[in-house]
Amino acid sequence: MKVLILSDDGFEDLELFVPYYRFREEGFVIDVASKKTGEIEGKHDYGIMANKEYAEINPGDYDMLFLPGGKAPAKVRKDENALKIARDFMGKNKPVAAICHGPQILISAGVVSGRQMTCWPDVAKELKEAGALYRDDAVVTDGNLVTSRKPEDLADFMREALKLARTAVPA
Amino acid sequence: MKVLILSDDGFEDLELFVPYYRFREEGFVIDVASKKTGEIEGKHDYGIMANKEYAEINPGDYDMLFLPGGKAPAKVRKDENALKIARDFMGKNKPVAAICHGPQILISAGVVSGRQMTCWPDVAKELKEAGALYRDDAVVTDGNLVTSRKPEDLADFMREALKLARTAVPA
Repeated sequence: MKVLILSDDGFEDLELFVPYYRFREEGFVIDVASKKTGEIEGKHDYGIMANKEYAEINPGDYDMLFLPGGKAPAKVRKDENALKIARDFMGKNKPVAAICHGPQILISAGVVSGRQMTCWPDVAKELKEAGALYRDDAVVTDGNLVTSRKPEDLADFMREALKLARTAVPA
Repeated sequence: MKVLILSDDGFEDLELFVPYYRFREEGFVIDVASKKTGEIEGKHDYGIMANKEYAEINPGDYDMLFLPGGKAPAKVRKDENALKIARDFMGKNKPVAAICHGPQILISAGVVSGRQMTCWPDVAKELKEAGALYRDDAVVTDGNLVTSRKPEDLADFMREALKLARTAVPA
């Protein structure tokens, strides 16, 4: 299993690292992509190396897309190469997991219409305006898509994200 | 499964929260004990509620003891009630998982002699002086005891800690 994370400076540290270590516990291989390679820094000052840039990613090399929250998605959503990656996963019904502000990337990619989803409370308005069927639940699974609201949801989020990962056809 | 965490202000945030959410993903019930109840704060400004104080803990109510690192263990190890809890788990061969500076609590409890263990590099000297068989590995399992060195070891640490938890006789 190969997981792709899209993020940038300002990520929510627990929302990136709890899944990161959980995926590694399963033996998954993880690439972190950002607008450029190099260390990105979270809101709580943890750093992680972005070892890929969006432009060089071939989505077909990955089994699952993971979008952590914080202030990073506001940056990621402005990058057309990042949005192309999100569209590829969603268009092919490949596993996508997004938490907190992560769904903003899917809104900008234009792939949330008609999908049952949740997100950080402040993002709910634009999620609904983009046509998603918003639910205020700890975790919402709709086909290939798992979403959660906040760090406190991480246990439920990871339980569902791992179930989803196990359904993936290896890339 | 019921897990007891002993910690205090200055805990290493990822070393507490990655296991915390992982245990909750498994459906484990978690109590956080400190010298007094109330919120304790990590080095990276995340907070968690200590819902128990050491003095009121009956170790027999728990299946597993978890000792996260950071600056908190330097405080925990000074509390005789906390040390009694650690001695009870170790004396009864019940699962104990400790990471980074967490093993300092086991040193002060006087329960590391002859045990294969690892810890944060700066703690290695006192661990060896206390009679432990130190190894510089990502994770070391010795009977009822799992230890790791640092946040980067969390995937290996949790894989082994979960294996150990599954061997526990429910309290």
